[in-house]
Amino acid sequence: GGATKRACPDLKREQSYAERAQLPNVHPLARKLLTLMEEKRSNLCVSADVTSGEELLQLAESLGPKICVLKTHVDILKDFTLDLSQKLQAVADQHHFLIFEDRKFADIGNTVKHQYEGGAYQISSWSHIVNAHAVPGPGVVRGLSAAGQPLGRGCLLIAQMSSSGSLATGGYTTAAVQMAEEHPDFVMGFICCSKVTQNPQFIHMTPGVQLETGGDALGQQYATPEEVIGRRGSDIIIVGRGILEASDRLKAAESYRRAGWDAYTKARSSQ
Amino acid sequence: GGATKRACPDLKREQSYAERAQLPNVHPLARKLLTLMEEKRSNLCVSADVTSGEELLQLAESLGPKICVLKTHVDILKDFTLDLSQKLQAVADQHHFLIFEDRKFADIGNTVKHQYEGGAYQISSWSHIVNAHAVPGPGVVRGLSAAGQPLGRGCLLIAQMSSSGSLATGGYTTAAVQMAEEHPDFVMGFICCSKVTQNPQFIHMTPGVQLETGGDALGQQYATPEEVIGRRGSDIIIVGRGILEASDRLKAAESYRRAGWDAYTKARSSQ
Repeated sequence: GGATKRACPDLKREQSYAERAQLPNVHPLARKLLTLMEEKRSNLCVSADVTSGEELLQLAESLGPKICVLKTHVDILKDFTLDLSQKLQAVADQHHFLIFEDRKFADIGNTVKHQYEGGAYQISSWSHIVNAHAVPGPGVVRGLSAAGQPLGRGCLLIAQMSSSGSLATGGYTTAAVQMAEEHPDFVMGFICCSKVTQNPQFIHMTPGVQLETGGDALGQQYATPEEVIGRRGSDIIIVGRGILEASDRLKAAESYRRAGWDAYTKARSSQ
Repeated sequence: GGATKRACPDLKREQSYAERAQLPNVHPLARKLLTLMEEKRSNLCVSADVTSGEELLQLAESLGPKICVLKTHVDILKDFTLDLSQKLQAVADQHHFLIFEDRKFADIGNTVKHQYEGGAYQISSWSHIVNAHAVPGPGVVRGLSAAGQPLGRGCLLIAQMSSSGSLATGGYTTAAVQMAEEHPDFVMGFICCSKVTQNPQFIHMTPGVQLETGGDALGQQYATPEEVIGRRGSDIIIVGRGILEASDRLKAAESYRRAGWDAYTKARSSQ
């Protein structure tokens, strides 16, 4: 009963996704994301790590209704074209999800600005969200922001990583959070393993999620939706191989959507 | 005179580039690089931050005789093709320099392996050297190595950055050095501001070099060749805007080549 319940401040969720969408200082793209998450009852981001443009579009079309974000690595596609990126945008509009190119920008400001706008991929022209490592210092955010903010784009700072032996811990994580708080016009949240700030305007997205825990041969480590949303206080689960390697990807995506959403509603009801 | 000379262990250069090329445990690509540096009397790497393939090739052809490494960002080219990468390789062979695609890989092992081999750029097929951030942990090196080591490629770990507010300091830098020492079959050196290890098999390359000190509006900070090679004990200066923005790029490259080489010979003669 209530008398024996232990205080657990990290689990406190004062506000629902919908309530956070209404906060006055929330980034416009975070507002859009939080709103569609509530509407679709989904905190699932699929990591579309495929190498064919056709397969990427098929994934987006079939899993679109289940997800809030589609995470891409267009730099592993063997046949990327700007036409593909336009088709992807149309699917995102149709099924109400955001596109997140997981580029992990990590250079000085002047260089990332060019990498974001230019080259073969022209990422700023089609990806709603990008991410950046904090290691170069605040110039990386300022460089990306110069290109992305006028287009209404948003950025996630990588505060922690799911891989074994990551150096994004302790003071590094604290510095990434501070960098975000100093650039709220462009930074809308974090890539992290668990909640890194109590500030409700920031969205926490966590990779390395599977229904079964474990790892791969190259250092990736997995946690469950229940662990990530329920106990670590993150907002969005990022699932790659748990869905892509399933015999029925749509069924697997629905399992993850339900597991992520159940973890969210359960955490809220236990407040 | 000698009696008043202060001990300065960081400046000690027991071995010349040519001598280090003969070390038994040196990475084959580091051996090749150290040898051509001595032959060409050049410790100059030009950062070819241009957006046209034609201009990149012109730069490589005209500055080729002056440089030991050509650093590229092919992801800012508006017209990259694999044919261009083959032409670039031919110019590198002709003028005896190595190509270093400054991709700053920074994801988990499984992802960077695909990014290195695949996509529009197929970096592993043409770039002798790539670099990686240490922040994901050792999986990033293992993932890249799986693709690059069989091709004789080499990797530089980013131990420090020249940008203002960089988080690659202290324990982060130490961890990057340790990661390199644990993967000497693939890691051949560092991107750094100053010498980070006394191990002579590793090559130190330092960006943010100009003949005049200063910075840019997005956090870059400049140091001189004399400072970087003479006082900080690095091996190779990386020069971008100091050459690209000069009215006569060839003349500017020769100035930097001479300044870098003079700093090297002066540091050795003052031992």
